[in-house]
Amino acid sequence: MRAAVMRNKKLVVDSIPIPEPGPGEVLVKTLACGICGSDLHTLKHAEKLVEISRRSGGAFTMDLNRDIVMGHEFCAEIVDYGLDTKKNLKVGTRVCSMPVLIRPTGVQTVGYSNENPGGYGEYMRLSEALLLDVPNGLSTEQAALTEPMAVGLHAVEKARLEKDDVPLVIGCGPVGLSVIASLRLKGVRPIVAADFSPRRRQLAEAVGADVIVNPAEKSPYENWRQVAAWNEPGRASQLPPWATGPALRPAVIFECVGVPGVIDQIMASAPQGARIVVVGVCMEQDVIQPMFGINKELNVQFVLGYTREEFAAMLRYIADGKIPTEPLITGKVGVEGVAQAFVDLGSPEHHAKIMVEPWRS
Amino acid sequence: MRAAVMRNKKLVVDSIPIPEPGPGEVLVKTLACGICGSDLHTLKHAEKLVEISRRSGGAFTMDLNRDIVMGHEFCAEIVDYGLDTKKNLKVGTRVCSMPVLIRPTGVQTVGYSNENPGGYGEYMRLSEALLLDVPNGLSTEQAALTEPMAVGLHAVEKARLEKDDVPLVIGCGPVGLSVIASLRLKGVRPIVAADFSPRRRQLAEAVGADVIVNPAEKSPYENWRQVAAWNEPGRASQLPPWATGPALRPAVIFECVGVPGVIDQIMASAPQGARIVVVGVCMEQDVIQPMFGINKELNVQFVLGYTREEFAAMLRYIADGKIPTEPLITGKVGVEGVAQAFVDLGSPEHHAKIMVEPWRS
Repeated sequence: MRAAVMRNKKLVVDSIPIPEPGPGEVLVKTLACGICGSDLHTLKHAEKLVEISRRSGGAFTMDLNRDIVMGHEFCAEIVDYGLDTKKNLKVGTRVCSMPVLIRPTGVQTVGYSNENPGGYGEYMRLSEALLLDVPNGLSTEQAALTEPMAVGLHAVEKARLEKDDVPLVIGCGPVGLSVIASLRLKGVRPIVAADFSPRRRQLAEAVGADVIVNPAEKSPYENWRQVAAWNEPGRASQLPPWATGPALRPAVIFECVGVPGVIDQIMASAPQGARIVVVGVCMEQDVIQPMFGINKELNVQFVLGYTREEFAAMLRYIADGKIPTEPLITGKVGVEGVAQAFVDLGSPEHHAKIMVEPWRS
Repeated sequence: MRAAVMRNKKLVVDSIPIPEPGPGEVLVKTLACGICGSDLHTLKHAEKLVEISRRSGGAFTMDLNRDIVMGHEFCAEIVDYGLDTKKNLKVGTRVCSMPVLIRPTGVQTVGYSNENPGGYGEYMRLSEALLLDVPNGLSTEQAALTEPMAVGLHAVEKARLEKDDVPLVIGCGPVGLSVIASLRLKGVRPIVAADFSPRRRQLAEAVGADVIVNPAEKSPYENWRQVAAWNEPGRASQLPPWATGPALRPAVIFECVGVPGVIDQIMASAPQGARIVVVGVCMEQDVIQPMFGINKELNVQFVLGYTREEFAAMLRYIADGKIPTEPLITGKVGVEGVAQAFVDLGSPEHHAKIMVEPWRS
């Protein structure tokens, strides 16, 4: 099959063997697969990712000297069933799945693996037990957004949001947009969002942010403070005697940039008692000032992925039109276009999500 | 009055003016004041502390070119009242107080301040509203432990502990011992604690740790895993399919060391989903691998100090004999002995808490 292969830290197009579905597995044809920022990071920092995964018991244990077909945000079509399958869905059914295989020996990733090619190739194998059929009428590309949008839903769930919390989203790339969409879905408002890119600020508005800040012009934290100030007169008198300024609603700050320095910057600027949810995936080492955290009793929640329930819920939300997906898909390429798409995605002005359609010529 | 003064980054003994109590304030005579690890840090890293405090809106805004009398873990005796005081407690009453002054212009610290000398001097001024009288029969030194022990109580409260959590305390200096004592007080057991120092491991046992580990011999995390494994057969079947090893109770890891590298080390070794409570006060910049946090969805809660209610509760707990304080006091010095005491406290084998008695000759 044709695939965009990561080989020696480069993306090349080549013909590779079609994967064989094992027991409990299905062979699927990839219809569309979004390119994820983590794949861009991985192309750049694969050694670090594998090293850190090894040291901390993570799942990214691929051998970088062998081929890897990335791609974990996919919608596919059932082609064939392996042994020991129930075959509840007909061949030809469009499906989504979490990008993992559940095997007796443990879980394996799809797309960050030497054995299990991801959606930048024409075929994949998936676990039958994880297949979700795409509801009628939902487009293939929208269905393929289930995975990245589930990331935002999971981050919002892990934030343990309470009634008065005011969220601040730092970075409006695909991860930030996913968080904004789920905050809006859950009715957590007003949503303050910040990005240096005009294009991304437009997208933030399109998916539901209420107050959108250009950090080059005004501090997102200042803007947040204005929005989060209690307007009820009684609130100020409830402040502890040492508090200065107006009483503020609790801050939940979503880090959606994923490059070194951003966590520390947020810690430096966050208000007292803020919760920081780290959704951006920074694969490099990072420097923090613990005293920022200590002085303000900050809480930092790192998150990854989503639960099976959240993934399934997100597909339903998208099918029900509760998540604005249309603005997000800004380009489509075949396997030959993947390498250039990785380059194009490096600039925030051109694209949000590029879909790979491996069968496209 | 005589005081051990921090002057040009050194501790010297000198005579300085007795502070005058302002409106709502009292003049007290310092009876005993514990030396805190934060004071050792401050002597070493004062510039960094002030700089970070300035950048993050913290309270440590002293001028290092002027004298500072540290000491914030004290028991004192009322000498005189300032204007606008209620005088509910008689002159001569022994009192404890949070080391802050509540003033119309805001809160000021006592002991990390150019204006408000702390307990390494013969007299202090305190806010009348914060005074707590020491219950009859409680020794002055035990009462002076209210402050450091309240730090542990606050950390345990901020950990939002649930029934099945198994705590792991990394570092058994005064901060770790304080955490262990409050975990025991709250009945959160078994308590696993680790320290390289034999003396500190003894103290950890004395204040209530159940399993005490020498990290030079065995990984504290391995030990924790043994202790935290569910022994009920049903639990293993509730594991997600990708989990390896036995089902584990949730981990709450208290960082009680406060030097660079420890947070990252804990993040590298912590089990999936662990909550890390940072109680140690690291005043230097620190390096972390965000991927450790991301891969395992760790939560990091930074904590500082205590609430007014926690401080008052701790004095009662100590008076009621619910906190084992006797093993903790290992030395007493006058103001002339403070500089050497700071040196001695650098070695974990000799001391837990040294009390300064400024009137001692």
